[in-house]
Amino acid sequence: MILALATTHSPRLVDSSHRRVIAPISTPDRLLLGPGPSNADPTVLKALSRTPIGHLDPLYVELMGEVQELLRYAWQTDNRLTLPMSGTGSAAMEATLANTVEPGDTVLVAVKGYFGNRLVDMAGRYRANVKVIEKPWGEAFTKEELEAALIEHKPTILAMVHAETSTGVCQPMEGIGDLCRKHDCLLLLDTVTSLGGVPLYLDEWKVDLAYSCSQKGLSCPPGLGPFTMGPRAEAKLAARQDKVPNWYLDVSLLNQYWGSDRVYHHTAPVNMNFGMREALRLLADEGLDMAWARHRTNAEALWSGLEAMGIEMHVPEELRLPTLTTVRIPEDVDGKAFTQHLLNNHGIEVGGGLGVLAGKIWRIGLMGYNSNPENVSRLLNLFETELPQFRQNVAVAA
Amino acid sequence: MILALATTHSPRLVDSSHRRVIAPISTPDRLLLGPGPSNADPTVLKALSRTPIGHLDPLYVELMGEVQELLRYAWQTDNRLTLPMSGTGSAAMEATLANTVEPGDTVLVAVKGYFGNRLVDMAGRYRANVKVIEKPWGEAFTKEELEAALIEHKPTILAMVHAETSTGVCQPMEGIGDLCRKHDCLLLLDTVTSLGGVPLYLDEWKVDLAYSCSQKGLSCPPGLGPFTMGPRAEAKLAARQDKVPNWYLDVSLLNQYWGSDRVYHHTAPVNMNFGMREALRLLADEGLDMAWARHRTNAEALWSGLEAMGIEMHVPEELRLPTLTTVRIPEDVDGKAFTQHLLNNHGIEVGGGLGVLAGKIWRIGLMGYNSNPENVSRLLNLFETELPQFRQNVAVAA
Repeated sequence: MILALATTHSPRLVDSSHRRVIAPISTPDRLLLGPGPSNADPTVLKALSRTPIGHLDPLYVELMGEVQELLRYAWQTDNRLTLPMSGTGSAAMEATLANTVEPGDTVLVAVKGYFGNRLVDMAGRYRANVKVIEKPWGEAFTKEELEAALIEHKPTILAMVHAETSTGVCQPMEGIGDLCRKHDCLLLLDTVTSLGGVPLYLDEWKVDLAYSCSQKGLSCPPGLGPFTMGPRAEAKLAARQDKVPNWYLDVSLLNQYWGSDRVYHHTAPVNMNFGMREALRLLADEGLDMAWARHRTNAEALWSGLEAMGIEMHVPEELRLPTLTTVRIPEDVDGKAFTQHLLNNHGIEVGGGLGVLAGKIWRIGLMGYNSNPENVSRLLNLFETELPQFRQNVAVAA
Repeated sequence: MILALATTHSPRLVDSSHRRVIAPISTPDRLLLGPGPSNADPTVLKALSRTPIGHLDPLYVELMGEVQELLRYAWQTDNRLTLPMSGTGSAAMEATLANTVEPGDTVLVAVKGYFGNRLVDMAGRYRANVKVIEKPWGEAFTKEELEAALIEHKPTILAMVHAETSTGVCQPMEGIGDLCRKHDCLLLLDTVTSLGGVPLYLDEWKVDLAYSCSQKGLSCPPGLGPFTMGPRAEAKLAARQDKVPNWYLDVSLLNQYWGSDRVYHHTAPVNMNFGMREALRLLADEGLDMAWARHRTNAEALWSGLEAMGIEMHVPEELRLPTLTTVRIPEDVDGKAFTQHLLNNHGIEVGGGLGVLAGKIWRIGLMGYNSNPENVSRLLNLFETELPQFRQNVAVAA
């Protein structure tokens, strides 16, 4: 009977060459201490598996409001246009540029690592006149350097990374927003590795555009990209000559859905937003200052422990991120062999270096749910007991 | 101690004006019989709550391959570039245009509903020379109409919707791909409401570009956008003068991550892909022809049941989608009051009309996990027992 129906309505035969019989999923419970994703809070994971509800359901609309409000708290901003983009952090990064850059606008990117270069690539695709200033990977910009570049290039937007995931540097932000206002430019800030884990005061710092991700300080799996836009950036969007050249990330459309009108734009990733809502609720319950202090305390314990073994940090302490620590691989150690050992034998992920730092550093994340003393002890223990096996006897080799 | 640290490293006070104390999430178990999202399979929901693994973890790389291969099966295609975009179906829709449209290219959109108009909007943002042919909402195009437009407009791309979610029409596809080859244009097809539920033979139909969503025939929550690109579209991408004007959706970059190089692009939405892997596994286990037949059988039961009550379908049977049925709201019924009653008193979501069909139709989805005889009976029962309360007594009123 069913076969007969199948034949009637499927005039062609089904090709089974790509059909695969595979076992149910059985991924292991890794401890993710690399640059991200980080482990999600079990409460958040549980929320992900709830029955979906409609993206225009009154209960979902209420949840959207909660997510927006709690994101404002996490970022310390009053920005009306604060919402999670329905993509990963990179989508939110692109949204900041797509909405505000018009062809020919000068965008100055302060590059001090991998993700600064991504901003350069993206801004070019939106036909900006892109200017770049650079610092070595492991350093931060001074206000003087930034002001000199603002004077030289007269950009419409200064884009920079607060917490550079590729280097472990936290850019000091005091005073930069004032410089941008003085020189009539918008300040765009990457807070991917800082939101929820590192002190962030978007409005006090006069940041006009920012984005982040779900899978680090917020303890949610990857898949949503928090985005925020202040009044000065909104004015630039409103004054555009043409439509935003990106439909999916167009904030003028998204605002009709996330704003009071609730006009359908796209079918929201409902379950991911269940998770985000719980992640932000847990952060607000803990309190932002308490979460920041926890990240700091656990990072300091990691740093002291490693330094006591003679292992050096890549970044001076005053610029060091508490969420993501870059550790110099000792010269006599095969860094990749050690991280593979940690993954394969202990189920712990630690990251390697990107770009010019490939092979030179490990990247250790203690972010969100993973920032706790137990994880610090466990990792320090493994460094103490198992790293020696990966040291080459330099004296003998010489 | 912690307070002291917080003070040391958080020189400013935290503003709590957006801090909210809210209860843990408690969304209800709705039965989603609207245009989507549809309910996800419980196996898929369970997979979403697994501990994340790294997006470059060897086990994740293996899972990516499984997802790609099973998507090829579901779409009946050999396309190398078959992958889920890290966004919803609308992101995948935009990806088909962003990668292949160059400024000035003529894109012909065959519009017969809401989602055709979305293609028009998007193509314009990529600076296409957009041409439109239209049919009333509830009809399909004939091959003759399409060929006449191909001859008149000489487009580079013909974009159309297979299963129009706003009207419930399934566009007959036999022969259209041949026409596109004859007139040297690419065929771009929206399969959002057909993938997994309606016979689809991408390669046999000579479709060059297609996209879909996760939350309908695949029984996964919304959040991923299956995307596929055949060799002719790949050649157009390779011949581009400039970079793809959309970094996040750039298939030439994504292919380095999803292809054999596994070069980092963005942090993948790992947990959503756990769900997608399970959703596609279940579809392959059932068998594509069996899944199509199941959707057909259950839809036919719905149609007969409603027709037996004197309720009319909006689309003639030969063009009717089995996944999404558009039902004409009887003239004496307040359609919105009835759907609100179903939602509030029975936890069942049924959709209303969009655009010109607003207030005129209901949209009933029986998709993926939700396409089963129990749901059909439950809904027919409610129509039979509770719809009469929403009929105005026309005789008395007159």
